[in-house]
Amino acid sequence: MTTVAALFFDVFGTVVDWRNGIIRQLSRFGDDKRLEADWPAFADAWRDCYQPAMEQVRSGARPWTVLDALHRESLVGLLGRFGIDGLSDTEILQLNRSWHRLDPWPDSVEGLIRLKRRFILSTLSNGNTALLVNMAKRAGLPWDVVLGAESARAYKPQPEAYLRNMALLGLEPDQCMMVAAHNNDLSAASALGMRTAFIARPGEHGPGQTIDLEADGDWDVVADSMTGVADALGCQDGC
Amino acid sequence: MTTVAALFFDVFGTVVDWRNGIIRQLSRFGDDKRLEADWPAFADAWRDCYQPAMEQVRSGARPWTVLDALHRESLVGLLGRFGIDGLSDTEILQLNRSWHRLDPWPDSVEGLIRLKRRFILSTLSNGNTALLVNMAKRAGLPWDVVLGAESARAYKPQPEAYLRNMALLGLEPDQCMMVAAHNNDLSAASALGMRTAFIARPGEHGPGQTIDLEADGDWDVVADSMTGVADALGCQDGC
Repeated sequence: MTTVAALFFDVFGTVVDWRNGIIRQLSRFGDDKRLEADWPAFADAWRDCYQPAMEQVRSGARPWTVLDALHRESLVGLLGRFGIDGLSDTEILQLNRSWHRLDPWPDSVEGLIRLKRRFILSTLSNGNTALLVNMAKRAGLPWDVVLGAESARAYKPQPEAYLRNMALLGLEPDQCMMVAAHNNDLSAASALGMRTAFIARPGEHGPGQTIDLEADGDWDVVADSMTGVADALGCQDGC
Repeated sequence: MTTVAALFFDVFGTVVDWRNGIIRQLSRFGDDKRLEADWPAFADAWRDCYQPAMEQVRSGARPWTVLDALHRESLVGLLGRFGIDGLSDTEILQLNRSWHRLDPWPDSVEGLIRLKRRFILSTLSNGNTALLVNMAKRAGLPWDVVLGAESARAYKPQPEAYLRNMALLGLEPDQCMMVAAHNNDLSAASALGMRTAFIARPGEHGPGQTIDLEADGDWDVVADSMTGVADALGCQDGC
């Protein structure tokens, strides 16, 4: 691993616990507004809109659109489906910004701080820049640079999402490692010559999770936490 | 200033001392290779190529080109002019990367660390992403996000360089403050509705400096160091 200069991180699921964060914020909003709904089901339904919405952009059916805008369209549709009417634009914006206020997994910040001593830490997320910056500021995620779908104008797993961001750092694929809790993200990165690290996040999708419970490829690092990735890359406490 | 969420920093001259950094690295290269030249004159000549090179891009005479590429073209021309022949591509790359290895002014890191507690800290530099990330990693500049000409595909002081980067953070101009040692940078930012902070850097251009010795506009903050900006914005030690 001596040639690796930069680590690129998937964020939703890998660094932050999106599902519990969304449920928490939806529930709090419901309490404030005296609205009742199955908030875990709402959170799962919102995330179910994620891939189809990005696929419209990937396929070229619609022009480049950032994730905040895709999230908002999905949210407006779901509010109707869950029988929630009459929210103001400000309330919808506040709810949509729930994705900016997700908490990290308990090991994420410590692991990233250790890794930052040795490597350039970059996001490589389908989230847009504002979302990722606001999230990092609130959660204490110590990124060196915030890259992703917006800086590449392409959504993972399209090759351009990886290639354009590596080019922005002036690095070749074998100088870059993709860190993700999703095997398909690592497959796409590996196919381009990037190194790979898998973190098992068996709670990402809640109690019924069936995918990504374990590594299903020959990844360079396999761990069950961000601190485990730091251990595997030789970034011990105090290194 | 209660509405300011993000500070955008000019980098060359404002945060780092480009002139002494370039002279130091050119001189060291000369010592290593047993080359003699007037290195301060070389450094100044290199910087003299900076605005004309960017102007070719601003005017549309050439397509978007990052600063590393412009610096390299200027460097190759100057090597000939200073009678230095026969450098390899690797040596030219090493010299060109001098711009990635500039030291901060003595007050920069402390001031930025204090400001980071309250504000989003973004670069807004004509340097390209790789240059700014490598510089920050070496010098300990605690950016939250690295933006600039490359993320906007426009060189300051063109309005797009400011507007597109504020849009990437989802912020309006009055939520953003431009921090620079150059009055013309602040004029351009102010014309778009941004707040402004001037830092006097009377040593930026060496002993004969004649421009930007003091604020020549009605800037919101006028200081002579980054810690002075932190003081003015209420970011005391331990705040």
